[in-house]
Amino acid sequence: MPQSSTAALPSRDDATAEMITAAGDFYRFGWLHGTSGNLSTRLSDEEVLITASGKSKGALTPDDFLIVDPQGKPASKKGPRPSAETGVHMAMYKALPEVGAVYHVHHLHAALCGKRDFKQGYTFINDVEMIKGLGLWEPEASARIPIVENHHDLDELARAIAAHLNSEDFDATVPGINLRNHGVYAWGKTPAEARRHIETFGYLFEYSWLSPMHDAESQAVRGFAR
Amino acid sequence: MPQSSTAALPSRDDATAEMITAAGDFYRFGWLHGTSGNLSTRLSDEEVLITASGKSKGALTPDDFLIVDPQGKPASKKGPRPSAETGVHMAMYKALPEVGAVYHVHHLHAALCGKRDFKQGYTFINDVEMIKGLGLWEPEASARIPIVENHHDLDELARAIAAHLNSEDFDATVPGINLRNHGVYAWGKTPAEARRHIETFGYLFEYSWLSPMHDAESQAVRGFAR
Amino acid sequence: MPQSSTAALPSRDDATAEMITAAGDFYRFGWLHGTSGNLSTRLSDEEVLITASGKSKGALTPDDFLIVDPQGKPASKKGPRPSAETGVHMAMYKALPEVGAVYHVHHLHAALCGKRDFKQGYTFINDVEMIKGLGLWEPEASARIPIVENHHDLDELARAIAAHLNSEDFDATVPGINLRNHGVYAWGKTPAEARRHIETFGYLFEYSWLSPMHDAESQAVRGFAR
Amino acid sequence: MPQSSTAALPSRDDATAEMITAAGDFYRFGWLHGTSGNLSTRLSDEEVLITASGKSKGALTPDDFLIVDPQGKPASKKGPRPSAETGVHMAMYKALPEVGAVYHVHHLHAALCGKRDFKQGYTFINDVEMIKGLGLWEPEASARIPIVENHHDLDELARAIAAHLNSEDFDATVPGINLRNHGVYAWGKTPAEARRHIETFGYLFEYSWLSPMHDAESQAVRGFAR
Repeated sequence: MPQSSTAALPSRDDATAEMITAAGDFYRFGWLHGTSGNLSTRLSDEEVLITASGKSKGALTPDDFLIVDPQGKPASKKGPRPSAETGVHMAMYKALPEVGAVYHVHHLHAALCGKRDFKQGYTFINDVEMIKGLGLWEPEASARIPIVENHHDLDELARAIAAHLNSEDFDATVPGINLRNHGVYAWGKTPAEARRHIETFGYLFEYSWLSPMHDAESQAVRGFAR
Repeated sequence: MPQSSTAALPSRDDATAEMITAAGDFYRFGWLHGTSGNLSTRLSDEEVLITASGKSKGALTPDDFLIVDPQGKPASKKGPRPSAETGVHMAMYKALPEVGAVYHVHHLHAALCGKRDFKQGYTFINDVEMIKGLGLWEPEASARIPIVENHHDLDELARAIAAHLNSEDFDATVPGINLRNHGVYAWGKTPAEARRHIETFGYLFEYSWLSPMHDAESQAVRGFAR
Repeated sequence: MPQSSTAALPSRDDATAEMITAAGDFYRFGWLHGTSGNLSTRLSDEEVLITASGKSKGALTPDDFLIVDPQGKPASKKGPRPSAETGVHMAMYKALPEVGAVYHVHHLHAALCGKRDFKQGYTFINDVEMIKGLGLWEPEASARIPIVENHHDLDELARAIAAHLNSEDFDATVPGINLRNHGVYAWGKTPAEARRHIETFGYLFEYSWLSPMHDAESQAVRGFAR
Repeated sequence: MPQSSTAALPSRDDATAEMITAAGDFYRFGWLHGTSGNLSTRLSDEEVLITASGKSKGALTPDDFLIVDPQGKPASKKGPRPSAETGVHMAMYKALPEVGAVYHVHHLHAALCGKRDFKQGYTFINDVEMIKGLGLWEPEASARIPIVENHHDLDELARAIAAHLNSEDFDATVPGINLRNHGVYAWGKTPAEARRHIETFGYLFEYSWLSPMHDAESQAVRGFAR
């Protein structure tokens, strides 16, 4: 794992507290039904703190987190198993050295947009103030939130995401990816930034899904009411 | 009631605490309006702990639970009445010996999908990551979530569900059933697993209900916009 | 005010605690935006405890309630003003002696259904399990939830509701009324029952609003997609 | 900044407590995703207390607020930066001397209505009880909630809003404005009134967005379902 360019990485205690709060809020928004989703924070160049596999996210405790190395291997043989999608997190930390936290939720409208827009490869967002929440503060900013094919095998998924992040098409200004029929991953330099990005994606996907309802032109395009 | 195949059944205190937390979360999701829904956990081969009848589910207390025997008869003559749907729970414990907990909620989209899809007998789910939340981890997994006719008489309903669970059509890989115009039952080996299944069903029904909105082909099939 | 037929009316403290909890839950469901809605409980034949006017309902305190007499007049000259809709509550207690509590919320789908169905005078509910939450346990039960014209003048509104409750058309088996483009009132013998009825109405109106989305026949009737 | 006409302005502690509670509630409604939104309260003719820039709004602390002068300049060189939209707040306090609090949230349906209705310049609200929550208690009251063009440059946005507030078209009976594809600003004489207005706008925009769904006439107008 390349050295993180982030000056101050959080302590394990701070990262744990931040992720417990964020996961609880996301759970209550309905974005982490079942035991879905996973959150991680980089503690050092050799350590990532990540949620354990198979836990309900509404009331996590410090015991529901564990440390893995850059290959995703647990630091301790005891303790809980890491999230099944640990490899995806590690692919992001490896490809994006400035990233300090990776959050993944199962926001319903992310999955819906991912299904709707998969053929074109992205969900297009423009002309909406909340795009600033992705860190896109330029005038007339737009975003193509990429939709990556979902893979059943999670190692294969991690490789596909690594390939995407290292491809020429990859647009580093958009801080996340949407997996087809699956859900959104967002990253940030800090846990607070990853949280801002996840919540912003949630808003943007819901906005993108609902806005054509009263839009005759879009309805024709979508086949919504024709 | 056949012997449970679950190695470690929870104590009454642990089952109570787990069900109070789960019911409170479900209530706040809007899945337990009125006094609807009921939750139970198997404590031993002879004892099931179940919610009392007619209680608001947002802030249950230990007094809102009681123990019933495999026939659904309260262990004590004092104390609250068991849920009116106790017989349905007992039918599930009897037919499915590995089941340790049964949760039933009135998720709106479960009722909507149950109404929409009743004629074909099931809601079909495929090509969506959250299907793994039902325990279906195989590649290309799909699920036919069965829709059973609702019966006004709850003894009759229990018998109909028992018949369904013992029929050749019953697919044991899907951990629950949807009652027409009523709501979803989910079971699990543990309370945590029942909770995961209920929340996953909630996501899947909402996804199934909303996803045709922008899908021209589905709209033609559904008569949605023609 | 006729004598209440309810054997045990709650103490002021118990009624206050129950209404604070219920209002907080309704607020978090989004049913009491602004300072909308009002809740009351009968304490004796001469006293009704009602929410004060103009308070946010998310975190009421005992000081946000006051006692009024059967004419809706505050028992004390000090203290807060009663809800502007006190007269409506009093009309219900007067016409329905068995009623021990009246809850009114601004559930969005109640207003939407009230707008949609006003010409026919009611929203028709049938073939859905949650109708039992209104206390309608008979086989094949259905409900015509009446929609009463809204009046700007609240005294006039109270008189119109009194007239409705005393008319031949009034169906006492449905425990509430919907005001056109306004919101739903529900009553119950106890605060717990009023709460169950309000939450059940919320579910039923949302179900009624959404269920035609995938229903070709209803769409033709509604003009939804033709 | 003209002298406030409000008799009793709140203390810093009271204003802080009120804004923390309101922001937490709005966050849980999903109206403050990311770090969006900002809240302010006038403490004196020379001081406005406003949320700091870039904070998650679910659990603000007193350290997440700071005092600015009528030009929006922080009173202290230490401490957090003020919200990027401080200039918009100041334009409102300057143009509307009676205003004691300004709240801004990113309610999804405000943005959707702002997009849908921008060409006509306003979202028209009438014949719905909740309009009273805006302080419009007259019979047959209606509201044209103005939609102001969004500007990327926040100084330019502040000037555009000042121009709107000082224009002949400005209707002072509607306590807020909607920014195109952005979100709603509401003001009030007190923090409690600003909160009531924000929540009422939230209801009204959602009502306006959803009500044409079953309305054949509106659908033709909107092109919703031909």
